[in-house]
Parts: sequence; structure tokens; C-alpha cells
Amino acid sequence: MSLPKAVLLLSGGLDSYTAGAMMRADGYELFALTVRYGQVHAREIEAAREVAKALGVTRHVELDVNLAAFGGSALLGDGEVPKNRPLDEHVIPVTYVPARNTILLSIALGWAEVVGAGAIVIGVNALDYSGYPDCRPEYLEAFERLARLATRAGVEGQSIRVLAPLVHLSKADIIRQGHALGLNYGLTHSCYDPGPGGRPCGACDSCRLRAKGFAEAGLTDPAIRG
Amino acid sequence: MSLPKAVLLLSGGLDSYTAGAMMRADGYELFALTVRYGQVHAREIEAAREVAKALGVTRHVELDVNLAAFGGSALLGDGEVPKNRPLDEHVIPVTYVPARNTILLSIALGWAEVVGAGAIVIGVNALDYSGYPDCRPEYLEAFERLARLATRAGVEGQSIRVLAPLVHLSKADIIRQGHALGLNYGLTHSCYDPGPGGRPCGACDSCRLRAKGFAEAGLTDPAIRG
Repeated sequence: MSLPKAVLLLSGGLDSYTAGAMMRADGYELFALTVRYGQVHAREIEAAREVAKALGVTRHVELDVNLAAFGGSALLGDGEVPKNRPLDEHVIPVTYVPARNTILLSIALGWAEVVGAGAIVIGVNALDYSGYPDCRPEYLEAFERLARLATRAGVEGQSIRVLAPLVHLSKADIIRQGHALGLNYGLTHSCYDPGPGGRPCGACDSCRLRAKGFAEAGLTDPAIRG
Repeated sequence: MSLPKAVLLLSGGLDSYTAGAMMRADGYELFALTVRYGQVHAREIEAAREVAKALGVTRHVELDVNLAAFGGSALLGDGEVPKNRPLDEHVIPVTYVPARNTILLSIALGWAEVVGAGAIVIGVNALDYSGYPDCRPEYLEAFERLARLATRAGVEGQSIRVLAPLVHLSKADIIRQGHALGLNYGLTHSCYDPGPGGRPCGACDSCRLRAKGFAEAGLTDPAIRG
């Protein structure tokens, strides 16, 4: 019997690695999609390649969608990545990339339909996160409803699920899960504004959420070299 | 007072040209987006450039999203474009591109948010069409609901509408509308499988729906040169 298939959105960060490993542990065959959308932290693409290998995915596609043509985000080089921002501030930060997850999920949906995958997997998290609207459970449910109407698969009753296994986990719990699964987080890259050689800045939201997660999990981050 | 803004999905065919002209007549400032998604009929991209000029858009962005990496459609070079297929056949044809309109609308949504546009315009039509699921009104409504949850604009109460001014029109009525607005359909390209020099094949769904529309409207297609 063939394994069920899933398309995994793979950024190169620790969340999508963990989400993919959880799916693999659940018996899924993985197809990994990484999008070069014009992110200033293109270092994460190299990490995604390593993670795809570590996950043993069937195929890893890297696709260009140059959202930097539009600008509108510090992650697209439009303004500075904020440093040491209060993480409990209830505003959507300037690192928000307009419609990013909708674009990523849409492309994953197309691929899922082609390979006959019953699921798209996204490593979003709505607890220790930056407050992006397209990481919330109600958004993911709306995308799944849309997918049923959008596709031949949906019309023919073969729905494509949107799975976000980390959505309700804290960063510490995500890291604990990955640790239990034996993942090497040294392969991953999280920083929005890396220095020479891809060195994490330690001060952007993504670095700080990661550091907080490792600290709370009582573990050492193997990507941080003294 | 500045004009309201809209992002127009512009393929180079006659529908998106007409939809854009109707929006312009309604007083919108237009931002045109054309996606090179790997379509075999890349001739339509040149047409889109001409149409963008004719519409006087503020900016025309051409973006690459190589869906041919996935295949799964005759329009992506995966199999033959069907010729002289019965148009009232109730199946989704092999020219269906998985999730195409969802991908196009998502990218348009991102740009709309960046420029502060209140609308995305798509020239889909659910009457004289090929039966694609992502051309139906219920699909478009679901995308609009998703857009409210997906974006900062939506969270802040500035909803981005999905406008499909042609959705309930016959091809003949679309052409009559364009004729009344003085559009030059000689700029447009519809054929899925053009011959040398971009000459329409006359036998694919798109050519036949176009020919039927011109015939029913009692007009001559200026793009057909004897």
C-alpha cells in the first residue's frame, strides 16, 4: 500500500522542519516546496535544502515568486527589520509580508492536486509568533474551505486538508517535539537579518522567539556557535 | 481626490481587457498583474503588454511563477491541448491548471495590500467558459472571505473586494460591452495552442468560445486575419 502524500511548505526554519518530521512520523510521503519570494534572509533557502535531505522528501521544489517587485515588507528589503521589539505588542509588525501564506498555500495546493496529495502542511504557530494574520487557525480553516471550491480534487470530493500541527504549540513545545524526534536544529535558519556567513542577529523577532523556545525547553540551540 | 485603486489580473485575452476597461470606466486607477506561469501560449504575455498600455494602467508587473515545475495541465505542456471538444461536456478539461486562479488572486491580494487597493479584478466568466472550478461565483466569494482573514488590511477592517464584472455575462455580451467601450480586440490573444507567429489554432476551447462570441455579437474579430 502506498503512503499518503503531503506537500510540505519548507522555509528552512525550525518550525517547518518539525512539522515535516511529525508528518513523516505519522507515515506521510513528503513533497517539499520552498519559495524564494525575495526574502532578505535568503540564507534560509540553503537551510531548506539541508532540511529536505534530512527529512528524506520524495522531491524538493524551489520556486521563484518575486514579491520584492511589490515591496511592502521589511523582509522584502523595504525598511529595516525591527530589533528587540516587545513581543507582546499587539500590532502586526513591518516584517509582515502581504498575503505571503496565501501565496505559499495556493502554490502548494496546485502541487498537491498534481501529485494526488491529501494534505498541505504548514509550520505556522499562533502562540509564540509575530502576530501575522495568516498564521491563525481561522485563516487556515478558511483556506481549506476555499481549496474545496478551487480545485478539481475538491469538486470531485477528494478534499485537500490544510494541516498545521504546530498551530497551538509554544515554541518550547515545538523544540521538545523535534528533540524527541531526534532532529538536528543545527541545519535550520530562523534569523530575519543575518550577518556575514549567515550568522543570526539575535535581536529580530525570529531570533528572540527561537532563543526563548530553547531556553524554556532547557536545551541548547545547536545553530548558535559561540 | 485620488481615484480608488484596483489590481487587475491581466492575461492578454479579451476578458481581462474588457474587465479592466469596465473598471476604468467606473473610475478606478489600475495596477495590472500578468503572471508567466509556464503557459505554452506565452504569446499572451506580449498581448498583455499591449493591453496594459491601451488601458493606461499606472503600473504593469510581469511575474514568474513556474508552475510547469509541477506539470498537471495541457497548458503547462503536459499533454495535448484538446481540439474541437464538445463545449457542453460536463467535465473539467485537461487545460485546467491546478489552483491557477487561487495563485493569481493570492499574488494580486499581496500587491493590492501594498498599494492600498480596495479591489482585485478578475475577468472570469462562468457562462461561456471551460468549466474550471476556480471561475465560479461561489469560489470567488470564498476567496474574498479568505482575504479578510489573510491580510493586515482585512484585520484592520479595510476589506479587499474580489470583482468579477464578467462572471454572469455570455461571451457575446462581453464583446458587446468591449465594443461599446471602443476596445481594440486586435491587441488580444486567446488561443491555447498558437501556430507560427502566434496565429490562433481555431480549434481549442478558447478559440471556439471567442469565435462563438463574436458570431453571436454580430461582429468581426479583428485578431483573425484571413
